[in-house]
Amino acid sequence: MTRYAAGVEYDGRSYHGWQKQRHALAVQEVVERALSIVANDKISSVCAGRTDSGVHALGQVIHFDSAAQRSERSWVLGANSNLPTDVGIRWVREVSADFHARFGALNRRYRYLIHVSHARSALWAGRVTESMRPLDVARMAAAAADLQGRHDFSAFRATACQAHSPVRDLQSLRVSGHGPWVVIDAQANAFLHHMVRNIAGVLMSIGRGDAPVTWAREVLQGRSREQGGITAPASGLYFMRAEYEPVFNLPPPADSGLPL
Amino acid sequence: MTRYAAGVEYDGRSYHGWQKQRHALAVQEVVERALSIVANDKISSVCAGRTDSGVHALGQVIHFDSAAQRSERSWVLGANSNLPTDVGIRWVREVSADFHARFGALNRRYRYLIHVSHARSALWAGRVTESMRPLDVARMAAAAADLQGRHDFSAFRATACQAHSPVRDLQSLRVSGHGPWVVIDAQANAFLHHMVRNIAGVLMSIGRGDAPVTWAREVLQGRSREQGGITAPASGLYFMRAEYEPVFNLPPPADSGLPL
Repeated sequence: MTRYAAGVEYDGRSYHGWQKQRHALAVQEVVERALSIVANDKISSVCAGRTDSGVHALGQVIHFDSAAQRSERSWVLGANSNLPTDVGIRWVREVSADFHARFGALNRRYRYLIHVSHARSALWAGRVTESMRPLDVARMAAAAADLQGRHDFSAFRATACQAHSPVRDLQSLRVSGHGPWVVIDAQANAFLHHMVRNIAGVLMSIGRGDAPVTWAREVLQGRSREQGGITAPASGLYFMRAEYEPVFNLPPPADSGLPL
Repeated sequence: MTRYAAGVEYDGRSYHGWQKQRHALAVQEVVERALSIVANDKISSVCAGRTDSGVHALGQVIHFDSAAQRSERSWVLGANSNLPTDVGIRWVREVSADFHARFGALNRRYRYLIHVSHARSALWAGRVTESMRPLDVARMAAAAADLQGRHDFSAFRATACQAHSPVRDLQSLRVSGHGPWVVIDAQANAFLHHMVRNIAGVLMSIGRGDAPVTWAREVLQGRSREQGGITAPASGLYFMRAEYEPVFNLPPPADSGLPL
């Protein structure tokens, strides 16, 4: 058996998230089906970060084991020809048996993309969050700075979250704007369920002026989901990358093609 | 009756081009239907540039006449709430009766977007042209320079093209690259049918090294479509904007959100 790591990109609109389930189509199901055709054997995968229904990925990372002898290029081309157009394998690398996509990830990065206009974007429909009202990027950035660091993020955690601990190290949380686009970039050792979308919801309220800049810190310190406002839509969320020890020699992330 | 100009954005994947037709769904049909609901009266439109099946637009411009009294904002919001998510009205302006979206356009701009990778993009599926083989941007740019100017573009014209003259003024044709993305930006007084896609096909052959840099000029001078190679796919083509006399005071184009 050889262990492989792979990069997966998907437009999440048509999928009920990453994880396989009985009554709805998930990205994991179509990816494993395509890899199984290439391997001519059943393939199971483990991912770096399970994404929710409607969430996209440019740099999802998985690992799988196979006894099939295929070149890295053959895995990519073979899998892609058996995948729907909205899911793609970007790269495959042979890795040592101690590589683990979930437990080996040093950190994860997400991007939250917002289009600010009274006229919604047709080209980005389902792949962006629309804000009819203006957002003050400077206010959002100031509030974001208060959330950085190692904290108990209970206030930004979905009630369904199954993580043992609510403590996460939010290594970076940046807000930037360019024309009608506002982007929130987040990096943490790991994220709680809905954590980025709940943070985006709070920052958008602050950006609209519906809440003071200090509100993000207050929500954090309150440690209660009930105080945390609304969960921002899945459509704007992208899983950008997971980082691993350099010894595994995974390819650097490609230019995303996203605004900014 | 008041004349209005409007900016229209669409993801062309689900439409048989701009122009209304009997047996297939066109963008014009859904736009006029939505505007007619807002006006509570039948609306007909004229566009700056008819796009083909599968071609996208960020800055299509139309005009229409209506006796209905609606604010510019009401036209936008009302139409968008009656449009499918992959078509949107970006702005509406009241204009004088001598505004004409087609005959008044001083120039048009198109962008052709190429993703260069042996692994196709899932996020941009249907909205980009994929090139499995590398493209030499410097060669493409040198060849593009030979096509600029006022020429007989018969060699880049679809056989079905109905224009009276094959002469067009190609004011600008630029090729640029960034990471896996290659972009061809073209501006002309007007374009012949398939002109940008035929130019893109020739430039891509040159970029791959399948033809010499001088081939673009040779094709142009041959004035024969048979010498011009393949028509590049519709998926990578975007109608970016049409320009009009400043007196009409149309809004500047918004940041497209496209790579580069």
